[in-house]
Amino acid sequence: MSSTKWVYSFSNKKTEGDRSMKNLLGGKGANLAEMSVLGLAVPPGFTVTTEACLDYVVNNQISDKIKEQIVAALKQVEEITNKKFGDDQNPLLFSVRSGARVSMPGMMDTVLNLGMNDKTVKAIGKLSNNHRFAWDSYRRFIQMYANVIMGFNVSMLESTLEDLKEARGVSEDTELTAEDLEELVSVFKKIILEESGLSFPEDPMEQLWLAVSAVFDSWDNPRATKYRDLNHFSHDWGTAVNVQAMVFGNMGDDSATGVCFTRDPSTGAKRFFGEYLVNAQGEDVVAGIRTPGPINNESKNVSNKTFKTLEELMPDSFFELTTVYKKLEEHYKDMQDIEFTIEKGKLYILQTRNGKRTAAAAINIAVDLVDEDILKKEEAIMKVEPEDLNQLLHPRLDPKATKNVIAIGLPASPGAACGKIVFTSERAHELNLEGQKVILVRQETSPEDIAGMVASQGILTARGGMTSHAAVVARGMGKPCVAGCSILLIDSKNNILTVNRKQYQEEDLLTIDGATGEVMEGEVATIAADFSQNFSKFMGWADEFRILKVRTNADNAEDTRIALEFGAEGIGLCRTEHMFFEAERILAVREMIFAATRVDREKALEKLKPFQKEDFKGIFTEMAGKPINIRLLDPPLHEFLPHTEEDLQELASYLGLELKQVKERCDSLHEFNPMLGHRGCRLGITYPEIYLMQARSIMEAAIECKKNGVSVNPEIMIPLVSVDYELSYLRKLVVEEIDRVLEEAQDKIKYKVGTMIELPRAAIMASEFAAYADFFSFGTNDLTQTTYGLSRDDASKFLPEYIGKGVLVEDPFVSLDQSGVGFLVEHAKKEGKKVNPSMHIGICGEHGGDPRSIHFFHKIGLDYVSCSPFRVPVARLAAAQSALS
Amino acid sequence: MSSTKWVYSFSNKKTEGDRSMKNLLGGKGANLAEMSVLGLAVPPGFTVTTEACLDYVVNNQISDKIKEQIVAALKQVEEITNKKFGDDQNPLLFSVRSGARVSMPGMMDTVLNLGMNDKTVKAIGKLSNNHRFAWDSYRRFIQMYANVIMGFNVSMLESTLEDLKEARGVSEDTELTAEDLEELVSVFKKIILEESGLSFPEDPMEQLWLAVSAVFDSWDNPRATKYRDLNHFSHDWGTAVNVQAMVFGNMGDDSATGVCFTRDPSTGAKRFFGEYLVNAQGEDVVAGIRTPGPINNESKNVSNKTFKTLEELMPDSFFELTTVYKKLEEHYKDMQDIEFTIEKGKLYILQTRNGKRTAAAAINIAVDLVDEDILKKEEAIMKVEPEDLNQLLHPRLDPKATKNVIAIGLPASPGAACGKIVFTSERAHELNLEGQKVILVRQETSPEDIAGMVASQGILTARGGMTSHAAVVARGMGKPCVAGCSILLIDSKNNILTVNRKQYQEEDLLTIDGATGEVMEGEVATIAADFSQNFSKFMGWADEFRILKVRTNADNAEDTRIALEFGAEGIGLCRTEHMFFEAERILAVREMIFAATRVDREKALEKLKPFQKEDFKGIFTEMAGKPINIRLLDPPLHEFLPHTEEDLQELASYLGLELKQVKERCDSLHEFNPMLGHRGCRLGITYPEIYLMQARSIMEAAIECKKNGVSVNPEIMIPLVSVDYELSYLRKLVVEEIDRVLEEAQDKIKYKVGTMIELPRAAIMASEFAAYADFFSFGTNDLTQTTYGLSRDDASKFLPEYIGKGVLVEDPFVSLDQSGVGFLVEHAKKEGKKVNPSMHIGICGEHGGDPRSIHFFHKIGLDYVSCSPFRVPVARLAAAQSALS
Repeated sequence: MSSTKWVYSFSNKKTEGDRSMKNLLGGKGANLAEMSVLGLAVPPGFTVTTEACLDYVVNNQISDKIKEQIVAALKQVEEITNKKFGDDQNPLLFSVRSGARVSMPGMMDTVLNLGMNDKTVKAIGKLSNNHRFAWDSYRRFIQMYANVIMGFNVSMLESTLEDLKEARGVSEDTELTAEDLEELVSVFKKIILEESGLSFPEDPMEQLWLAVSAVFDSWDNPRATKYRDLNHFSHDWGTAVNVQAMVFGNMGDDSATGVCFTRDPSTGAKRFFGEYLVNAQGEDVVAGIRTPGPINNESKNVSNKTFKTLEELMPDSFFELTTVYKKLEEHYKDMQDIEFTIEKGKLYILQTRNGKRTAAAAINIAVDLVDEDILKKEEAIMKVEPEDLNQLLHPRLDPKATKNVIAIGLPASPGAACGKIVFTSERAHELNLEGQKVILVRQETSPEDIAGMVASQGILTARGGMTSHAAVVARGMGKPCVAGCSILLIDSKNNILTVNRKQYQEEDLLTIDGATGEVMEGEVATIAADFSQNFSKFMGWADEFRILKVRTNADNAEDTRIALEFGAEGIGLCRTEHMFFEAERILAVREMIFAATRVDREKALEKLKPFQKEDFKGIFTEMAGKPINIRLLDPPLHEFLPHTEEDLQELASYLGLELKQVKERCDSLHEFNPMLGHRGCRLGITYPEIYLMQARSIMEAAIECKKNGVSVNPEIMIPLVSVDYELSYLRKLVVEEIDRVLEEAQDKIKYKVGTMIELPRAAIMASEFAAYADFFSFGTNDLTQTTYGLSRDDASKFLPEYIGKGVLVEDPFVSLDQSGVGFLVEHAKKEGKKVNPSMHIGICGEHGGDPRSIHFFHKIGLDYVSCSPFRVPVARLAAAQSALS
Repeated sequence: MSSTKWVYSFSNKKTEGDRSMKNLLGGKGANLAEMSVLGLAVPPGFTVTTEACLDYVVNNQISDKIKEQIVAALKQVEEITNKKFGDDQNPLLFSVRSGARVSMPGMMDTVLNLGMNDKTVKAIGKLSNNHRFAWDSYRRFIQMYANVIMGFNVSMLESTLEDLKEARGVSEDTELTAEDLEELVSVFKKIILEESGLSFPEDPMEQLWLAVSAVFDSWDNPRATKYRDLNHFSHDWGTAVNVQAMVFGNMGDDSATGVCFTRDPSTGAKRFFGEYLVNAQGEDVVAGIRTPGPINNESKNVSNKTFKTLEELMPDSFFELTTVYKKLEEHYKDMQDIEFTIEKGKLYILQTRNGKRTAAAAINIAVDLVDEDILKKEEAIMKVEPEDLNQLLHPRLDPKATKNVIAIGLPASPGAACGKIVFTSERAHELNLEGQKVILVRQETSPEDIAGMVASQGILTARGGMTSHAAVVARGMGKPCVAGCSILLIDSKNNILTVNRKQYQEEDLLTIDGATGEVMEGEVATIAADFSQNFSKFMGWADEFRILKVRTNADNAEDTRIALEFGAEGIGLCRTEHMFFEAERILAVREMIFAATRVDREKALEKLKPFQKEDFKGIFTEMAGKPINIRLLDPPLHEFLPHTEEDLQELASYLGLELKQVKERCDSLHEFNPMLGHRGCRLGITYPEIYLMQARSIMEAAIECKKNGVSVNPEIMIPLVSVDYELSYLRKLVVEEIDRVLEEAQDKIKYKVGTMIELPRAAIMASEFAAYADFFSFGTNDLTQTTYGLSRDDASKFLPEYIGKGVLVEDPFVSLDQSGVGFLVEHAKKEGKKVNPSMHIGICGEHGGDPRSIHFFHKIGLDYVSCSPFRVPVARLAAAQSALS
């Protein structure tokens, strides 16, 4: 054990680690070593290993053997920098940072300027020719140190600062003079002594030991511990400590600091691009007090075009920077975001990381890097976050527009929309007919609102989560939606929306951003979606590698068309009930519900058949032979009933009944838990004539399409099975009806009959269903609800608190719960294939558009995912990444 | 193959089979062989094997090799009986019956008197000296044969019979003369020829071949096929055919027919007991046209005491019968129900089977048989149906009372009750205070009705299934309940119950029988439950052998006391929320719900604490150290809110709020699917102060009891977990609070903290929960609901149709679905024990009182079941039978 290496140095002289040593040096330490190995001018320093942390935890102190190695490494840094820790002429200062193998909340972050004391502050003042800066750095260091390392309550020091500002009659820290700050330092020290009984340590070595101990201590603080518990990370990893020399860009006119990108983060264009400030610290660039200059001509814009470029001012450093950025981009094979500082003519690279970028830029950069032979296609595909493609597919807010955000809800369906607010679907429809743009504002939406949603630019609801009715339907339609915005008080009787006591009337203008959940007053400018050539090229590459097929959830020809443009390979879920809600159909549906006998029901269904048939013909024609999975009627009948007194009366007149009778029938259909009620195939069992009508419509439509030269590939899906006999009975019913239709038409058409696996029992007993199913499709929305015993409509009331408290790491309706619900999916897939190896298996829940879930579906070997049209590209990319990783 | 034996004879001369050959000879055939082997005077005959059936199915005819063996066996019967098939002097007639290894619906049942034709009818008339009987038998034979074997629509023959009766001016078949019947026979034959083109076969051999073929054909008829599909029985079993000589008890005064029991089926008393008729057929005894005589003095009663006994009249036959009955009882080791016929002085045993008996008789017989050394205790335990014990535990209708049944609902909680009907819980309470007996009639009940249910003799609801609120609570209380009686029209505004257009007002008398589901007008006499010494002895034996422990579900000291009397070994589920509903508490609960801050909530909870504590002290004291599983608050808060305008107003006044505010809060708590909503541990997470109050109440009660010398053994159960962190967080919360209470009291008390597994995800992820649980208790009600995606409250609307159509073989809320829900239970048990082998695991759903489910729980190795107090004896017996089988 005496030969254990506890400390690893890094510098352009001597570096002992590399990026493979993440477990020992932590992520940050490994990266600093890696950059040093590359020969970059990283400020020198050393990493105390994670093993040292574990040693510390056992002994409750830094062992002497570790201290020895730290001191030795510190000496090396002194030699390389030609500075001395605690020196009163040319003092060396350090930053101290924690760094575990993954970053986690609660860990001690950063202490800068370690080594400051009454002597070194003067030296820094002299060297920088800026005493105010020196004393301000010292003052900040004491504050940070007292708080982070000594565990001192910071508010007392802060109030002293405020008192001083008041005494001086100033409002900003920056208005305090060097003398003010010097005075503040001595007051700070006095307070610390009085309150804690401890002197602020003037000895730099003592500062260092305490700082290293503080990092190690933070490994076991409650927040970090809980985070590891939640993520199932081991408590035995430990954290490393990175001690690195400070460099200063404010040491005179031969010093500077800046930020640069190796390519344009907005467009992805290949141009070296950045900003800098002479004689300044890094934070000055960010703070925006001084306007930074362009590093080169290509970085010039309207506000900085008259400034000298870094290239002109410090050509040597600029040249070195260009060498560095090229090296870094080649090494990391990606666009880099680089922070640099020039101290007295010497360039230091403080940080480099893959640069944040817009989705458009991400695609352009990925494609360019392939063209430049830096990346292979397979690597390029991994460079774009599937989720980011959303930005490209929907109109979005003009980033330059000003906006007055009045509320924030859930970002339920991306895209931005602006319109006059309305509180009912009827009103949405009316204004839409007048050519007006509207935003539908509802407590929540129900299937009755479909027409109103179609007529609106966007939907805003006060209740419901990411998978509420509004959210799901809006995503399906590709319309922006902000859901569950609980701050909204909606008085739909009087048509008043109140937000923070401010009232909005019908037809007032609002803008919503479904990508962020923001609700804004008035009209905020938007810009349209655009597809570049690179987008098509990039998505083409993704398709080359992906194994999972991608279908779409679509209920009409319009959605189908959009999905096809986005690359859908079929329909994974066509919900026939959405076809029931249009005005001229809903009365026939209600007539069917009120029918007392099967004969009367069949009469009402006969009225619906032509509509269903036309819809199917439209979809068949669009899809031209691609597979179309049609789900037979699923929701409970009461979803089709009217709610308002007026509609009830209308229905009564239509049916020739008394209002009372209509109400009684509506009451008798009421269910305590509709989610678990009389729906899905349970309707098919009790009212076989409904499924018969649907089967006949599908097949008659198919036959007519085929006559018109359109290939058809229908798959008929029986929903909500839990008992094998439900499927065997209904399959027989449907197949016999189809055979009748085909015989009447003297035609032959291939079709499949399968089922939806959306209840735990169906998943458990999959082998029994497989014998009667040509395919399975997992309805993971309902499967998640029943597996968790959690209604997605009701969960919005406590799910935020659940996620806030860390009970759930994420919303299981957004990303599939792989261990629980996933267990059932995998079990059912295996059992099903065992009995029926030729069956195909897909998934049509909301999770079909979620990249992490798609990764899981790929891993367990499903055949396809299906998602709303606007998520098809996301799914295609995620599927490709799954295949490649 | 040529040596295959297709036909097995049976007679007291030569019998080729025995009861072990069920698969080859069918159940009936094996039993006939067994009785013959015993030397009983069974009418001789033969069985055509199930293999012959399969041969028939393949060849679509009876092969010659089989026909040969049938003819040979027939000859043997002729020799034994000294009669001849088709003979015009002493003709042999046969009965032909199907008999598969299990009996199933749809199979051809019985054809009697095969061999009747124009010649043999006359011989029978002469031999019986009863031409009317002979022609009537012939007439019936033709009708049955035409229908069952020739597939002739029977209505045409029946209408001819009706026409003849009208022509003769008589109303009963028995009023037709021999000549009438002879005429009818010839008309029947003419109709058959005209309608089918086929003559009725006069040749007895032809009759036989057609009858055997008809039995074989019936194996594949649709009803039988569907039944086998539903029960997963193989279609390759086939059915056997039993051909047996007919004997006649109406061949003169030396002939007779009768039925006897080896012991008294009402009381179980050991007395040979039966009735007979001289010169009569078996059906005459049943038809009740003539009053039958007693077989011996012990069988005499008021109506037959003047008759001669069989013992007196035919002492030889009687003596032979006593030998037979003793042999049979000894052989089958059970009380037998024997049918016999004496033909011309010769005794034949037509059938023997274990006799139906009352529960009291069953127990007495079982105990006596052990005392008589006929049975071992282990065997005796298997002789009583656990379900039948119900009869003993509840008052029941006097079987002699006349009753006017006006409706039949579900037999939801056994026992009979009579009372004045009331439509509200308040009214039940008022009349109860006046000392009146009431029946509470409700659309359905809710937790608000608890007080009203307590005040009632029985509960009658129009909605809800076997596990609806009313049913579950009534069973818990041991009160009779008829649920889901959908024919009831309840107008609770005007207090009118309408059944089939007849109206019943408040305070009209009704009687309900919760064991049959019957609803009766007026008062029907009831008799009380009684426990015999034999009952205690018998249950004691059961306890000796059983491995599963039996606990009870009880929420108060009263239920606890009943359950202890019935032998409960602890409480498996104490629902704390039932304690919240009493008048003085509910306001504090509502105050808690309306509290805006945690502090206000805690203030309201502080008011509830004394009540909870008192309740727990009562239960602890009753149970005296037996384990008590207490479930923390489970239902969603809105269950505690008032519904009527009046109650809402009262609450508003109490809280000092406006009615509108109260209504808004109530609305905001509304849930779409409460079953899947904000309940169970989800309340504990969002309002930890509720669980803290409950934990403190439990422990303070325990400490005080201990001080009073009462042992305590509390188990605290966290309900509705789906994510492991819910349990780890709440366990910590509860344990810390308990530790505080114990520290304050300077005391130590052992306790456990565990969880309820009632959601599929909890079952799937059981290994993760086991680390934080001292026990699991399966909540199979909710687990069934979520696994099937089926709300038990809503399912009552279509479950009857589901069971009627055979989609479900039985209600999964009554008997556990072993393959689906059972998969999860077994999985969770295994995974849990793997991680935490010392944990105990039980079940507290309704299935804990169902014998078939108990068998399953025993098989997979649970530690205990828990059920409502009145089902504890049922569970004890079922558990013993599981251990022994």
